[in-house]
Amino acid sequence: MRKVAVVGADMTRFGKFLDRGLKDLAREVVEGALATAGTAKSSLQVAVVGNAAAGLITGQEMVRAEVMLRDMGIGGIPMLNAENACASSSTAFHLAWLYVASGMYDVALALGVEKLYHTDKQRSFDAIGSAVDVELTEQMVAEAQADQGGVAGAGSSRSLFMDLYAAIARDHMRRYGTTKEQFARVAVKNHFNGSLNPHAQYRERYSLEEVLASPLITEPLTRLMCSPIGDGAAALVLCSEEKARQLTTKPVWVRASVLTSGEDHSPGQPGLGERSGAAAYAMASLTPEDVDVAEVHDATASAELILCEEMGFCPPGEGGRLIDSGDTSLGGKLPVNPSGGLISKGHPIGATGAAQIYEAFLQLRGEAGERQVAGAKVALTENSGGMMRGENAVASVHILSL
Amino acid sequence: MRKVAVVGADMTRFGKFLDRGLKDLAREVVEGALATAGTAKSSLQVAVVGNAAAGLITGQEMVRAEVMLRDMGIGGIPMLNAENACASSSTAFHLAWLYVASGMYDVALALGVEKLYHTDKQRSFDAIGSAVDVELTEQMVAEAQADQGGVAGAGSSRSLFMDLYAAIARDHMRRYGTTKEQFARVAVKNHFNGSLNPHAQYRERYSLEEVLASPLITEPLTRLMCSPIGDGAAALVLCSEEKARQLTTKPVWVRASVLTSGEDHSPGQPGLGERSGAAAYAMASLTPEDVDVAEVHDATASAELILCEEMGFCPPGEGGRLIDSGDTSLGGKLPVNPSGGLISKGHPIGATGAAQIYEAFLQLRGEAGERQVAGAKVALTENSGGMMRGENAVASVHILSL
Repeated sequence: MRKVAVVGADMTRFGKFLDRGLKDLAREVVEGALATAGTAKSSLQVAVVGNAAAGLITGQEMVRAEVMLRDMGIGGIPMLNAENACASSSTAFHLAWLYVASGMYDVALALGVEKLYHTDKQRSFDAIGSAVDVELTEQMVAEAQADQGGVAGAGSSRSLFMDLYAAIARDHMRRYGTTKEQFARVAVKNHFNGSLNPHAQYRERYSLEEVLASPLITEPLTRLMCSPIGDGAAALVLCSEEKARQLTTKPVWVRASVLTSGEDHSPGQPGLGERSGAAAYAMASLTPEDVDVAEVHDATASAELILCEEMGFCPPGEGGRLIDSGDTSLGGKLPVNPSGGLISKGHPIGATGAAQIYEAFLQLRGEAGERQVAGAKVALTENSGGMMRGENAVASVHILSL
Repeated sequence: MRKVAVVGADMTRFGKFLDRGLKDLAREVVEGALATAGTAKSSLQVAVVGNAAAGLITGQEMVRAEVMLRDMGIGGIPMLNAENACASSSTAFHLAWLYVASGMYDVALALGVEKLYHTDKQRSFDAIGSAVDVELTEQMVAEAQADQGGVAGAGSSRSLFMDLYAAIARDHMRRYGTTKEQFARVAVKNHFNGSLNPHAQYRERYSLEEVLASPLITEPLTRLMCSPIGDGAAALVLCSEEKARQLTTKPVWVRASVLTSGEDHSPGQPGLGERSGAAAYAMASLTPEDVDVAEVHDATASAELILCEEMGFCPPGEGGRLIDSGDTSLGGKLPVNPSGGLISKGHPIGATGAAQIYEAFLQLRGEAGERQVAGAKVALTENSGGMMRGENAVASVHILSL
């Protein structure tokens, strides 16, 4: 397998854009990523799109990739839409990487794009809920209800996801003594980071007290500990080593590209997080100690805390102590989610993974402005998708370096 | 890139299965393909699913691959759903091939599965229609109407597709003197071939007169010249050369795997068919003269006639003469669509490409029963997707050999 570089990247601001369509969001970032790369549309040899929900929300599926790119004059090359729920665009990036790493093509585009806001809100919720297998939903709702004596906003697919995250959080509290305040501290950190990121959907800072006092979604998660829905896009241009040397003096190398799936958090087994992290470190010949900055899938604050353990940033069960130590804050030893993460930057499902890699790209090139992690040489991104229990879960971990 | 072999293959019968779900169809062929390969589920290292319309038809999208495979005990490996309209499962096969050819994995599964029949027929039609970009549809309908003075069944997305195929057929008639009888002869051939195929949706034979007398869809296409909608699945197991030598004495080698997109049939330009065919021959270091048997995307009889030209089986404009010669019939020099093709075997969108490769696999291994092409050593499959005009069209060509 050949060395692969990221040479161009862009993202839209994430947010609620009722007046912008998928193609409009896509165009902004594809043109932006090509401009950063200093190359033209005509140099693209393959394009992989990650979109999870446009079929159900817009009614257009089947040829999403072609429809999304055609109007901006990209065509005549291999294209496909890769679907993997919240991990759709890290899946797209992984395939773009594979095309270049294999030697098949020299220049590839990975695009993540999603519009979750629709004038009919129910459509968005139904689409998001479809990431849960229909046959599992009732059982999972029942379990979550039994576990905590009632589901806030039961019946909404959004709350179902949060219920499951909350159940995992409560389990972590029972087993390791993790506190609600520690989860809140993750949210305080990420909202602070997001306040420094012009692309973040929300840019307010909150105190620990404000996070704890915000409306309860499902114990222990309050609204400010949970990611919002949103619209947005992010794009990356990948290329071979030879091409990268021609295009830029600042290539960002893809050291590991891992996609996997399977059951997460089953007792006594290595979870999906541990497996995907370990596979990525092995592929990159690096260890968690080598990582200078990370973006992980903080769909909730508790998810970040647990993912820090799974990525090896601290021993199992010590995620609470890690956030307390300040090591994962900007200025700490290993800043996590300097972009603001899903919680503050936003979470337009099919755009999230590509946006994490965009942040890694900026951090490694020293272009992250006020949220720059000084001297970052190795970045890790972890993008989760699907349901956290059962075999539907997906994880994609990338390690990038200077 | 490494050599890649197909070592296992299976398909369901195509048809209308209101009592069977996607998972049930998938399970039959995945277990069948693994049995042919003589290997276990646990040997699979990656699985790529091709499904085009389940989101809109079943309401489940986002993690289609994981949902489809989980219940049969396949998990813990990289998975994704690849979407490319009618070319979705040749896209899935192409990605599975890329995973093995690149050296990343040794054993890969490609699955194509689709359920188009739904108790609510309108859902199926809406989903199929979504392969046409919304903004293009009206213009295309208007063009098709202006061209032939009225659209049969206007407003149905199904008829819109057939209108576009018919417009291309009429253009071919004007330019080359091709006749309606020649298109009908393609249908007669394919219905005959399908009568020999136990997996075909329709197994009736028809005379030239019967094909011509069947209800007109859009001039010159009658119902018996058009593919039906249907449900079905097909799966392939791919592996590295080393693994193939361990598993079987009858590997089928993938000599070329091409996926591309772009405008088809634009005046003065090589169409998508020519481009994808030429790329495949170049990759395989073979010529059209080397091909012993082919499966091409006969969504309509006219499409097969034109694809035979585009794949180089005859000079441009001579598709009519080719079908008249009998060369593409069973027993002829280069049998085309021995399976019955989409017209007779059926066309469950996301399963079609994988089923073409299943047929190639059987033919090369001499296991095609009554429809066996004697001594077939090289097979070509051509799978088209999306809209035939505009930049939404997709084509995937594979060449396989003993």
